[in-house]
Amino acid sequence: MTLILDGTVAAASIRIQIAAQVAEFKKKGHRPPCLIAILVGEDGASMTYVGAKKIACEEVGFTGKVRRFRADISENDLISEIQKINLDDAIDGLIVQLPLPKHISEEKVTQAILPQKDVDGFHYINMGKLAKGASDGVKPATPYGITLLMKHYGIDAHGKHVVIIGRSNIVGRPMSLLLSAAAPYGNASVTLCHSRTKDLSFFTKMADILIVALGKPGFVKAEMVKEGAVIIDVGTTRVEDTSRKSGWRLKGDVDFESVFEKVSAITPVPKGVGPMTITGLIMNTLEVYKAKFV
Amino acid sequence: MTLILDGTVAAASIRIQIAAQVAEFKKKGHRPPCLIAILVGEDGASMTYVGAKKIACEEVGFTGKVRRFRADISENDLISEIQKINLDDAIDGLIVQLPLPKHISEEKVTQAILPQKDVDGFHYINMGKLAKGASDGVKPATPYGITLLMKHYGIDAHGKHVVIIGRSNIVGRPMSLLLSAAAPYGNASVTLCHSRTKDLSFFTKMADILIVALGKPGFVKAEMVKEGAVIIDVGTTRVEDTSRKSGWRLKGDVDFESVFEKVSAITPVPKGVGPMTITGLIMNTLEVYKAKFV
Repeated sequence: MTLILDGTVAAASIRIQIAAQVAEFKKKGHRPPCLIAILVGEDGASMTYVGAKKIACEEVGFTGKVRRFRADISENDLISEIQKINLDDAIDGLIVQLPLPKHISEEKVTQAILPQKDVDGFHYINMGKLAKGASDGVKPATPYGITLLMKHYGIDAHGKHVVIIGRSNIVGRPMSLLLSAAAPYGNASVTLCHSRTKDLSFFTKMADILIVALGKPGFVKAEMVKEGAVIIDVGTTRVEDTSRKSGWRLKGDVDFESVFEKVSAITPVPKGVGPMTITGLIMNTLEVYKAKFV
Repeated sequence: MTLILDGTVAAASIRIQIAAQVAEFKKKGHRPPCLIAILVGEDGASMTYVGAKKIACEEVGFTGKVRRFRADISENDLISEIQKINLDDAIDGLIVQLPLPKHISEEKVTQAILPQKDVDGFHYINMGKLAKGASDGVKPATPYGITLLMKHYGIDAHGKHVVIIGRSNIVGRPMSLLLSAAAPYGNASVTLCHSRTKDLSFFTKMADILIVALGKPGFVKAEMVKEGAVIIDVGTTRVEDTSRKSGWRLKGDVDFESVFEKVSAITPVPKGVGPMTITGLIMNTLEVYKAKFV
């Protein structure tokens, strides 16, 4: 029987534990953890994501704030606003919803965030700490969320061969660092594949755990995976679906129907990795907060 | 025929090119590049390494300085000295020879170095830039030196399967980042193996390029490598050798004699990767210098 790695179930369970910890801190007279999201412009998807993050914060007892700016805010003004938040002790975590308007450098803005408040885990300092195995960095939210999902379902990467497709800064690259680290969630032998990999099937076929983050809906077919493997599908592409009112649905990078029969565990899309990104973000914020009050 | 990847030959060739560039800058009236090495205490091996770095600097026309401190210098005092050097515009590169006495945190000291002067490439910021593929970071010297060695001998990692044994912060980990990066020296599919890897031979046998940095002399035997592979041996362990006056010689992690016959190219130990570490360091210093004057 194939196990469905349900992100909504894992997220709910983890968030209940987080909420309980927050309640304990409040009982002791501490203010709740506070996450602020910066949203620039009126992009529909970004507004949805930020809204979902705010709701998730409130559900676990955090203060979730959104700070909106017009699409024509200058890079300097945006960075000044970030610097003010950096100095505000009442705010634990700060994220800037991407993408930003083209006249603003996303990397410059990301690097302006105080590393200790960078709960997306995108700052060079946090990525460097991750790469060097330092224990006090903030881990990138999506890969961290994936490790939490694996832990929830008892999937141990230790000594396993993990194959990752995609070397993005948000998923593939930090995922490879986390899972190969000398850490409880790590100790896997990790192969990182990408657009320049020759004969991708050669690698995917030998993966004990296959993590796919390349953004090509339905790309991984049954013949590309090993019998009994664990499949983590990070892809979320909108594909046409005329049977729905919206006209579209989300599809992952894995051909779920054909792969399902062959593997031991698989994440669905949606409701697999998706909810775990926000869980990673909330967990990061809690950890930053706890470092102040414990 | 097996190609010997001779680090002394590659280093000499690269350093001639560096010396020519330095001469050009001097002709234009600029001061030479300056690298300063901090040496704490009286460790014999450290004194040898620092001496070799100073000589290598002078050979290419750099100013090579050594700043020595007593073994009982406090961590704070050492960091103050580093901060002074950080502010000194006449010094381009700063390295602290490791190991440090036990009362001093190597990581704290490393992180005190201005990232732009960190020509060993050990700062979190530089490691983070490497992980995120930023072009303006300083690359860790040994892995960078290995890419220079490969380039010198026309070994292109692009699309190849690179297997790395060892996940140290100095070699294995940054090597995996460099060779999998979307960069001229990168674009390989990289597998990172380590002490928790099960069935190491399974991985080593399929490597097009095998990079070994685990510190076990003679560990990799012929039956562990693929016919025609490229072997980079980063190991340097002192082993007893009664035929020598010193009583010891350096031995790599690869059983050179047996592996030699089977592969297409291999680094000897010594005179393989060794000279390339200093070359990486010098190249880093030149690049930091050029960023100021070009």
